[in-house]
Amino acid sequence: MKGGYMGKFLRVDLTNQKLTDETIPENILRTWIGGRGLGVYLALKEIDPKVDPLSPENKVFILTGPLTGTAAPESGRWCSVTKAPLTGTIHDSQSGGKWGPELKFAGYDGIIIEGASEKPVYLWIHDGKAELRDAKHLWGKDTHATTDMICEELGDENIKVLCIGPAGENLVKFACMINDKGRAAGRGGHGAVLGSKKLKAIAVRGTMRPPIVDEEKFREAVRANVDKLKKHPVTGEGLPKYGTAILVNIINKHGVLPTRNFQTGVHPTAEKYSGETIAEKTLIRKVPCWGCIIGCGRYTRIPKESPFAGEGDGPEYETLWAFGAQTGTDNLEAISKANFLCNELGLDTISMGHVIGTLMELYERGRIPDEKLRGIVPTWGNAGAIVELTWRTAYRSGIGDDLAEGAKRLAEKYGAPEVAMVVRGQELPAYDPRGAQGHGLGYATSNRGGCHLRAYMIAPEVLGAPQLVDRFETKGKPQLVKEFQDGFAVVDSLILCKFNTFATWLEDWIPMLAGATGWDITIEELKTVGERIYNAERVFNILAFGDGREYDTLPKRLLEEPMPEGPAKGKVVKLEEMLDEYYKIRGWKDGRPTREKLEQLGLKELADKLEEENLLPG
Amino acid sequence: MKGGYMGKFLRVDLTNQKLTDETIPENILRTWIGGRGLGVYLALKEIDPKVDPLSPENKVFILTGPLTGTAAPESGRWCSVTKAPLTGTIHDSQSGGKWGPELKFAGYDGIIIEGASEKPVYLWIHDGKAELRDAKHLWGKDTHATTDMICEELGDENIKVLCIGPAGENLVKFACMINDKGRAAGRGGHGAVLGSKKLKAIAVRGTMRPPIVDEEKFREAVRANVDKLKKHPVTGEGLPKYGTAILVNIINKHGVLPTRNFQTGVHPTAEKYSGETIAEKTLIRKVPCWGCIIGCGRYTRIPKESPFAGEGDGPEYETLWAFGAQTGTDNLEAISKANFLCNELGLDTISMGHVIGTLMELYERGRIPDEKLRGIVPTWGNAGAIVELTWRTAYRSGIGDDLAEGAKRLAEKYGAPEVAMVVRGQELPAYDPRGAQGHGLGYATSNRGGCHLRAYMIAPEVLGAPQLVDRFETKGKPQLVKEFQDGFAVVDSLILCKFNTFATWLEDWIPMLAGATGWDITIEELKTVGERIYNAERVFNILAFGDGREYDTLPKRLLEEPMPEGPAKGKVVKLEEMLDEYYKIRGWKDGRPTREKLEQLGLKELADKLEEENLLPG
Repeated sequence: MKGGYMGKFLRVDLTNQKLTDETIPENILRTWIGGRGLGVYLALKEIDPKVDPLSPENKVFILTGPLTGTAAPESGRWCSVTKAPLTGTIHDSQSGGKWGPELKFAGYDGIIIEGASEKPVYLWIHDGKAELRDAKHLWGKDTHATTDMICEELGDENIKVLCIGPAGENLVKFACMINDKGRAAGRGGHGAVLGSKKLKAIAVRGTMRPPIVDEEKFREAVRANVDKLKKHPVTGEGLPKYGTAILVNIINKHGVLPTRNFQTGVHPTAEKYSGETIAEKTLIRKVPCWGCIIGCGRYTRIPKESPFAGEGDGPEYETLWAFGAQTGTDNLEAISKANFLCNELGLDTISMGHVIGTLMELYERGRIPDEKLRGIVPTWGNAGAIVELTWRTAYRSGIGDDLAEGAKRLAEKYGAPEVAMVVRGQELPAYDPRGAQGHGLGYATSNRGGCHLRAYMIAPEVLGAPQLVDRFETKGKPQLVKEFQDGFAVVDSLILCKFNTFATWLEDWIPMLAGATGWDITIEELKTVGERIYNAERVFNILAFGDGREYDTLPKRLLEEPMPEGPAKGKVVKLEEMLDEYYKIRGWKDGRPTREKLEQLGLKELADKLEEENLLPG
Repeated sequence: MKGGYMGKFLRVDLTNQKLTDETIPENILRTWIGGRGLGVYLALKEIDPKVDPLSPENKVFILTGPLTGTAAPESGRWCSVTKAPLTGTIHDSQSGGKWGPELKFAGYDGIIIEGASEKPVYLWIHDGKAELRDAKHLWGKDTHATTDMICEELGDENIKVLCIGPAGENLVKFACMINDKGRAAGRGGHGAVLGSKKLKAIAVRGTMRPPIVDEEKFREAVRANVDKLKKHPVTGEGLPKYGTAILVNIINKHGVLPTRNFQTGVHPTAEKYSGETIAEKTLIRKVPCWGCIIGCGRYTRIPKESPFAGEGDGPEYETLWAFGAQTGTDNLEAISKANFLCNELGLDTISMGHVIGTLMELYERGRIPDEKLRGIVPTWGNAGAIVELTWRTAYRSGIGDDLAEGAKRLAEKYGAPEVAMVVRGQELPAYDPRGAQGHGLGYATSNRGGCHLRAYMIAPEVLGAPQLVDRFETKGKPQLVKEFQDGFAVVDSLILCKFNTFATWLEDWIPMLAGATGWDITIEELKTVGERIYNAERVFNILAFGDGREYDTLPKRLLEEPMPEGPAKGKVVKLEEMLDEYYKIRGWKDGRPTREKLEQLGLKELADKLEEENLLPG
């Protein structure tokens, strides 16, 4: 194998504790690129879509892409693909840090994890060799201790560790995988899948480098991409200066910062936990991912005098929102502490903060009996509660046991399902789509459930990148959403950081990809790859639970309750105005790809499979 | 069997999941009474003293006494006896609540637990029947959830549950057993022993009653005891009005409230967490044990606005001290919250607070590297830290993993063993013995390690019960300590609440015991029972680890550093002045019973055993 790939994938059969090296043919890689794309290919090939996500029959694919660990800017990433316990959908979760490149350096392009171990184990990969090791002593340990203990016992502090915390062990539905102590493959509950398989960690270390086919061409393309990133105001200035937290004030001023579980879009005191405030009060240093020229990561500290003293990576924008506006809290110290605990215990910050907001609305409505709460009173803005509910969720202690099931199941259990602000069971993130119509369509049609990163329409609708469009307008949005969705599927497969997309796009990446791999991929072909991935994901979901139009929707609140105040006052998401056109553009009927579309994408087998199960539309 | 006993003990062989009913002959019961006494008898008979306390070879004896569940005042108690993981000594731990009497009502006098289960189980005892049930779904749950879930699945909310929390499962060296959600067999780590055996809980319910041999005699004796309790200012007024927390101000005023890890005996702001303050600010209701006429138990609530919001049983005096003065904290909200968490997670409050104080002194001395702390800064009086360190200890998270080993191992690990304020590895409780010489001798010679309840010399030395003696004087103290130690061994065997001892003593209990059992025991015989128990315990320790004079000591600080301020200023414990006399009175040499003494107590076999192992003195 050549070009960005080492030619080696590791199959880990946990049931039989057996490790095998495999090669994935180059034509498959070119068809699916890597990362997320390769993940859905493998999922459709190897996972029965109807499987229980927490059973040994589910699999986890840990993947890199052709640009991972190369000099391509913002390429220090990896992703995990699995059937997610939170959503029951196909699900990819992306992470930065230093672990992804190190997996390459250790000699592997990806890992296929199957079965389940009887006893806790961890995987140790180094310079082309791999072994399973006993992890009994690591079970129960948080992500920091696990990382430190593995480095110590293997005698090398430069080892990079991906692991789960107590939340993953306890099968919390939104437990994440943490690498490098503070980076998360956050959403969907991938950590719980590892927990169900008793795979505590994957430690990697090595000196190998992915081959580059045309060094000169590649170097030149990299230079051009770096130039554009440095010159763009977002990637060259905003993100380096304040990190993603720069968004708090911007999004709030646009009236789309979801506040108190999406009851409004304005949090009057959000300034107290903005990027600017962090820079002034709690910032210790930047923490860039491997080879990153932006450096959006932050390491912060809450002083010892605070009841929420602590330090660690974060908080990012989404986290600030989740523990902040979503719970009505403006206490930066408590928000940061909850973030640190999520990193240590292995929880997705978006879902964790979101679910606490769900609990608060249920409590406000009198749905939560006092005896469930042990004296914690989940009222809006209760700083102490957000911290305590976080560790209780990781350990499933008290009401935390209910929170651990996610917003949908929580709201259903307490008799008010309409309180759950979810799409396909995944908690919505930090943008109220009533003030960004395209973003709303993106949420509704996201294959992995409520997500801002399938089609980050906030860029054109709010931030003006690549150019500003009318955010309250629905016209033209379906086309834009489709293009973003497909393009982002490519980004997630290459794998590049999404921040590239502020400054560069497919045409900029093609020369890098060509330089690395030698593949003469055109823009049209790359767009098709993105579309193929999006359609393949949808097919997985259709086979899993009959995905389709009834799931392409939003919580009632966003469709029917007008935004009560602020610049987006009076707006709802006019989803129905966009959905039919979106389907038309996609070549779908009622949320399902037609045979024609699938065959056009080279997915005839999937069309046959859908037909077999009577799931092919009209 | 007759008189206070049902005639039935349950042997639970966890290795083979086998349950057997057994009868212990009446002559054995009369020799050892029950509870603590019967426990040491069984331990010497069935446990190899050299066994690892957390191995399947250790056993746990859950015992009642001849007065448990009868109309005898303050008899709603039970005890656990085992070889303790915190100390390596023989160890009894006593608890109140409603569980002990209910075990009797369920038809059993006691339970002998041996071996270890492969998978988590719980024991269900009801009206003379017993069964082991799967506890997989309960593993990881805290004590409140465990209790609720068992009551729910067995369909009876009046079932009484004794269980361990996450701390016991995680083998925290001072994990306790919790019954009735807020009552603890607290000290020594009995919860960890159950955890090592994978026995999550013991649920009991029944309608049987222990037989009374002479109803009339018994009733009359009970009446006399109740009278004395009601008339005594401590049991008739002080304890009912303020609970044990009444002691905070009293002990502080005497300058013996150990502050900042026994660096001084005065905590200037202790008033902020006194019994009087609790009564005014946080008290919700009293929570008396079964059949109790004092009702010292308290249920309190910290309001939702506090970062430490919560509610639950406690805090008792010892807990107020441990999280208060010992850590230099005067924040009642944080102290109470730490208490609630101990109840839920299954931690001994005395050791937990004490160990946090140990950490704080180690930190003050620069012994704890910052990277161990994750931003928690354990400075004296840091309210947030005491709460966070509590849950972290139960889950062995971060520095909590070190705290979970107890003060002795913590101080040793960080290179300052002299910081550990322990006797035989057990953290000292809430009285600085520099201002109560007899109490100091009691600490030093306590068979289960640092404990105020082996010989509560604070009663005569500070509280004036039965009459005030000069607390700074050593003369006469050895005799008094010996009498208290033996008397308290009887109380723990009957089993009665120690608060009886403020108002009544052996001569008052004999008629109750005689009425219940028909035994014509004299005062002299009862005193001998107490002495027999104390000596038998010491023999267990000698066989276990060579107990003797070198262990009958106190931390250097208490022997050499004069109290720096307050009414006890300038004092140290003059232990050497008392120890030889104490040994002489006990018939011991260098901390070990002579053959003569053992034979006099009917323990010839133990003398033979000591001789065999070359451990008999002189």
